[in-house]
Amino acid sequence: MKMEFNKIYPFWEKLSAEEQRLISDGCMVETFEKGMLMHRSDEECRGLMTVLSGEMRTYILSEEGREVTLFRVRSGEICVLSASCLMDSIDFDVLIEATEKTEVLILPSTVLNSLMKGNAAVELYLYKSATDKFSDVMWTIQQILFQKIDQRVATFLWDEMAHKELKEIALTHEEIARYIGSAREVVTRVLKYLASAGAIELKRGKICVIDKEKLKTFL
Amino acid sequence: MKMEFNKIYPFWEKLSAEEQRLISDGCMVETFEKGMLMHRSDEECRGLMTVLSGEMRTYILSEEGREVTLFRVRSGEICVLSASCLMDSIDFDVLIEATEKTEVLILPSTVLNSLMKGNAAVELYLYKSATDKFSDVMWTIQQILFQKIDQRVATFLWDEMAHKELKEIALTHEEIARYIGSAREVVTRVLKYLASAGAIELKRGKICVIDKEKLKTFL
Repeated sequence: MKMEFNKIYPFWEKLSAEEQRLISDGCMVETFEKGMLMHRSDEECRGLMTVLSGEMRTYILSEEGREVTLFRVRSGEICVLSASCLMDSIDFDVLIEATEKTEVLILPSTVLNSLMKGNAAVELYLYKSATDKFSDVMWTIQQILFQKIDQRVATFLWDEMAHKELKEIALTHEEIARYIGSAREVVTRVLKYLASAGAIELKRGKICVIDKEKLKTFL
Repeated sequence: MKMEFNKIYPFWEKLSAEEQRLISDGCMVETFEKGMLMHRSDEECRGLMTVLSGEMRTYILSEEGREVTLFRVRSGEICVLSASCLMDSIDFDVLIEATEKTEVLILPSTVLNSLMKGNAAVELYLYKSATDKFSDVMWTIQQILFQKIDQRVATFLWDEMAHKELKEIALTHEEIARYIGSAREVVTRVLKYLASAGAIELKRGKICVIDKEKLKTFL
């Protein structure tokens, strides 16, 4: 397998030749179809996942089945929570699913575990990455707790547009509701409101942003 | 100043004699009265705070002035977020206040900064502590998002009772509302409901748990 490990793992240069070999021998590429569950905390953890293409969604789930998306991990990013079983400081449960067809590089838990024990740079990298995610989650939580629902929907559409560099967002109202931690009915109501204001147009299975400046006024 | 630094800072044994001297010379004890703001992210950060006695509350604040308590830090615990300016991975704003008269040991930012740069064990300790707090915050968030309000009030009273080892909780309804991120009116309604069920008794400025087993049924 040809991988530019030095670009994928920032701690690469701090590893011995032997440690680097452990990674290049142990890493594997896996593909997940849209909607597949890639990780759940109550099962054995696979290891550190890096998204090569596609996107994963990290979320929490209530006993009643309500989902709240914490953050998404996009191409080139790592998802440190998929290795949470190796980090004593993490004791909450998350689920990770592929939101589209997603290819990931997996550094297996067994390999990562021996690297962590032997090299402080690896352990520090993991805990720094976890703290990064702490910041992401705090941003999400502030949106959920403090923003009005029309603002949240508008912010979501705005961010989607920026990430995908598209004016068409191919998501159902149900999917948007899951991303922002709301109910489908509520999202539909807000989308109709944004459409009536002339910011977006609702089409079958997708949403078109027709007036960016107008959408911006709802942020 | 006589302090048992080896018990306060788990990385103490991994410091050189020179680094240990930096700490024992640089640390200071400060006392905050009840309700005093000890830290806010938009001001210069003081350093790593360890609670010697009393209690601090870490919370976020909306533009409209709504507060949500993230977690509390009790005697013997450190509050890593008071040193957030030294950690690039933390980019959210929190406020920290004393919930009662509180004495803290402060390891000033300047000293901490040079220790972090010179000793990986110190940096790792800070990021591990931040990840611990990530877990605490996730617990709080799941309470707020997924629990019914009567459950949240009952859980709060239960935890207070356990921490203070008292059956009387000397807090106003307003204060409880701030801790659990709700409104005073809502807390008052739930407390009356718990009182009518025979779990608690409401007295002037305090709440008495009169039937622990009954209160437990609301958790």
